[in-house]
This record gives sequence, structure tokens and C-alpha cells, in this order.
Amino acid sequence: MSPASPIVVLDSGLGGLTVVRELRNSLPHEDILYFGDTARLPYGSKTALTVGGFVKQIINYLLPFDPKHVVIACNTATALALPQVRSAFPGLSISGVVEPGAKAAIVAAGAKQVPTIGIIATEATVKSKAYERAIHRRRNHARIVLRPTPLLVPMIEEGRHPGDPLVRLAIEQYLKSMLQHGIDVLVLGCTHYPVFKDVIQKMVGGSVVVIDSARQCADDIAARLKGANLLRSAESAPGDARDVINQGTLRCFVTDDPDRFQRLAPRFVGVEIAPPTWVSPDELYGPTRGGDGWRLNVPA
Amino acid sequence: MSPASPIVVLDSGLGGLTVVRELRNSLPHEDILYFGDTARLPYGSKTALTVGGFVKQIINYLLPFDPKHVVIACNTATALALPQVRSAFPGLSISGVVEPGAKAAIVAAGAKQVPTIGIIATEATVKSKAYERAIHRRRNHARIVLRPTPLLVPMIEEGRHPGDPLVRLAIEQYLKSMLQHGIDVLVLGCTHYPVFKDVIQKMVGGSVVVIDSARQCADDIAARLKGANLLRSAESAPGDARDVINQGTLRCFVTDDPDRFQRLAPRFVGVEIAPPTWVSPDELYGPTRGGDGWRLNVPA
Repeated sequence: MSPASPIVVLDSGLGGLTVVRELRNSLPHEDILYFGDTARLPYGSKTALTVGGFVKQIINYLLPFDPKHVVIACNTATALALPQVRSAFPGLSISGVVEPGAKAAIVAAGAKQVPTIGIIATEATVKSKAYERAIHRRRNHARIVLRPTPLLVPMIEEGRHPGDPLVRLAIEQYLKSMLQHGIDVLVLGCTHYPVFKDVIQKMVGGSVVVIDSARQCADDIAARLKGANLLRSAESAPGDARDVINQGTLRCFVTDDPDRFQRLAPRFVGVEIAPPTWVSPDELYGPTRGGDGWRLNVPA
Repeated sequence: MSPASPIVVLDSGLGGLTVVRELRNSLPHEDILYFGDTARLPYGSKTALTVGGFVKQIINYLLPFDPKHVVIACNTATALALPQVRSAFPGLSISGVVEPGAKAAIVAAGAKQVPTIGIIATEATVKSKAYERAIHRRRNHARIVLRPTPLLVPMIEEGRHPGDPLVRLAIEQYLKSMLQHGIDVLVLGCTHYPVFKDVIQKMVGGSVVVIDSARQCADDIAARLKGANLLRSAESAPGDARDVINQGTLRCFVTDDPDRFQRLAPRFVGVEIAPPTWVSPDELYGPTRGGDGWRLNVPA
């Protein structure tokens, strides 16, 4: 592993691309491998055993690329599986999105001894209590108001825009009880949600700080790589060719429908992407398939 | 295979239980094995290759129970994969939900030569054109208005009730253009949708016939089993014990979170269910796993 090694970013689908967008802004020279597990998304309604297994398979598949860092750019997968994934790959630097988001929430809460922090996330992330733990480790007396918001991901995946009346009504319903609690900070605890950040900010009002976990996650990775002397610098190419040669690349892998992924990706990452590589979920389970790729006991 | 063999009903999640409810009403003596692929749901945004592979794995897993019939109780899986699944299991009687729904739509259209038939379904079902083909085979000149309605499944899975303002607004948005076309019949082209049937019927008005594909599918299975002399009759048990002994059983298998499935199931099937059996997706891929169930190349 060297500074030239890629950063792996993985997610259940498109949401993690908001982390890629932030990474490309702050670390434009880095090569990024993105894996979207679109055949098995969403992770948000599934268990730790299942999601942990999926993530381990994906990392295993990408190990031959010798990544210098792996980011689980999915709040659900981070909340449910980060410790089990880390212990499965002891030599690998792996981070998630929950800790950076929790840290930023505490910074935003400022000097307030008992801040009220709201968090919206998937059902699985809420149930995991990962954010409560991460926040209470930093400020014991913080009041935490959690709300699962399971329709936001399918609304974003459907391509709905923030101005859609259905989107506004859903966000209003989800935030209503939260606003009655008088929150100081609102954490967008899912990497899909930054797509609706502006309408959410408007709805909670200017006095509430809205934390975008994608942004915080990218800052966290930059600090880790710098600390490990693994940042790829612009200096390694000579003269005028420097900027062109050292512009980092983005390569995407998906487990289903590369066309759909390529079509929807710009909304999340902010630029057009090259056609993704398709990886059959079958491939993730290992090399011992039958002739047609499926284990069939019936006569052909 | 005999009349005592079970009927297999499979789906991506909970929706296919609406078919089970209808089957239990019309064929109360039958044993039913239900498989909900909750680790990999939803199927509605995925491709034929992926969904077809999932369905073949599930049938393969259930073959040892010697089913007398397999129902793909999921419009997406039927639309994308029925032919490939049938040819993978040539000895097995397999049916889906699209043909019965299309047939019922034509019956409901009555003598009208050019009826207008509306269909709401998942993105994948709409794209597959399976309903168009099935309807045009029966009435060449029928006008068809298709509308993908991808938020209805997550709304139902979230446990939202038909009276929820968000549900009403979503259905209104989805049906608006359809009503402008002046439809005669509306097909609920997803086995989840019967949960919202009443509010949909109210919104389209009494003159539009709403076709519930779950109901039609159950009628179709009853006719197939009768034709093959495979119906299980109440007569095979003696005297007063008849009703008790011959009450068919329902056994459920899921690939993720049996508790959640058991909690939400009554909404679809109309009765409480026994705890489902958990089947790891790993098991579906075959017996060649590593010691901890995952293929890991890293040292432990």
C-alpha cells in the first residue's frame, strides 16, 4: 500500500456518492473505487448479520486493488457492522460515517452543556443506537431526539426533487415532533439526505445547524490519510502535466443495473460518471458456481 | 408429488402474503410454504438477470419439500423472470400473478372493443411490458395506461395506513394522469397494493373496476390444481376431526429479520403467523462457505 493506492468507498446504492463528491472536492488527486450494492439495497431495513455479511463480501472483492483506506459510506452499514468488519480485516484502515457526524454535531452544539441533538436516519440506524453512543461518549448530558425517516431514500431514488409537495409533506411529518423538542442541531444520518439538505434547512429554520454526514466523513478521511502520510500529492508529476496527470480517477462497481446507476449518479456526485462495472452478487459469494452461474439440482 | 404436497408461494417480502390470504380463503385445506426474500428486497428496481437468479435460488432451496405448485406471488419477479424460471425447472408447475390479473382486466372490461386499462406497478414491472403483452394477447385494441408507483411499497412496509395524508397525496399524484385518460379498469399490478385497495377505489370512483392481482392469482391456482387432480380435500380425515386435521398449515421462511416479518405479516395475511424460519442468503448460494459463513481471504 502506498500514497498511489486507491480509496474504497462503499454503500448500498447511490447515497455514498455524496461522500465521493466531498472527497473529490477536498482530495482531488486521489483515485476512488466506489462500490454500490444495488442488487441488495436498501440496507436500512435489514439486520446487522445480513448487512455485515454484505459489507465483508464487498471489501473482500476489492482487496486485490490494495486500497489504502476503506470508507463505509452508509450510515446503516456503519451503525450495524463497523466493529465486525474491522475485526474481519485487521490489517486494513476502515472508517465509517457515524463518528464524524457525531463529532461535528458536538462541535456545532458549542458550549451548551445540555444541547438537544436531532438525528434523522433509516430504521436500522435508529435501532442500532450508534449515534446515541457516539454522541454521549463526547457529551454525556446531550439530549437526543431520533426519528426514522424510511421514505426519504426511496423518494430520492425515484428522482423526486426537493420542491415536490410529497417530499415537503414527508419531511414536515418526520420533523414535526422533532421541532417541538426545540433542537439545536440536526444530523442528516444517511448519506442520501444531503440531496434534500436545502429544503430541510429551510424547514428547521436558520438557528438549527444541519450536519451533513457526507461532508464530515470526507474531512475525517483527509485527516486520517494525512496522519498516515498516505495523501497523494500533486508534486509527484512533473511541470505542466501535473494537474492533468494527477487528477484522481473515479471507478464505480455495482451489483445491478449499471445504466440506471450511471443515469442517477450525477445527482449525488455532481458530475457525469463513466459506465460502472457490473459485479454479479454471485461473484461475491465465491468461485464455486455451477455452469450457468446458479446452483441447480434439476436436470437441464 | 401428491394432493398432500404443499403449495409454495414466494415473494421479495411481505406483499405475496396477500396471495396467501386469498389462497387460505378459497383453499383452506392446503399447506402453504411462504418464502419472503427480505434480505434482498425490493425486487422492483432490479434487473431480470438479478431477480431471475434470486427466484431460482429460492425454488431450488424449497424443492426438497416436493411442492405441487409454485406461485411467484410478486408482479416484478413474474414480469421479469417467469419464462427463465420455468425453463430452469421443467418438471415443476409454476405460475405467476401477471396473467391472472390481465385476464381479469379483460373480463371486467366487458364487451367494450377498445377499453382503457390502467395499471399501477413497480418500475421494473412497468418496464418489462409484461402486462401490455398479456392484455394485448386477449384484446388487441385495448388502450393501456401504465404508471410506475415506486413509493407505495415502502409506504406499506413502513406501516402507513390508507388514511395517512402522505399516502393519499402519493396516490393522487400517481393516479392523476391516469384519470385524465378515462380508464375503465385499474389493475393493482403489485401484490402489496391490495392493502390500499379501498382508498384507491374511492379515488378512481365507482365506475372503474379495480382488479386485485392477489385475488385473481389465487383463483388461477385453484383452477390449475383442480385440473391436475391435486386439490387436497376435507374428505381424507375421518368424522369430527376432519375440520381440525385438515386445516392447512402456513410455514414462512425469510432471508432477514424474522421478528419484523412476523410483526407486520397480519396486515397482509389477515391472521397472526408462527415465527418464520430464517434462511441466510448465504445458504441459497450453496454449501461451499468458509468456516464463519463468509469467504474471507484475510488471516483471522
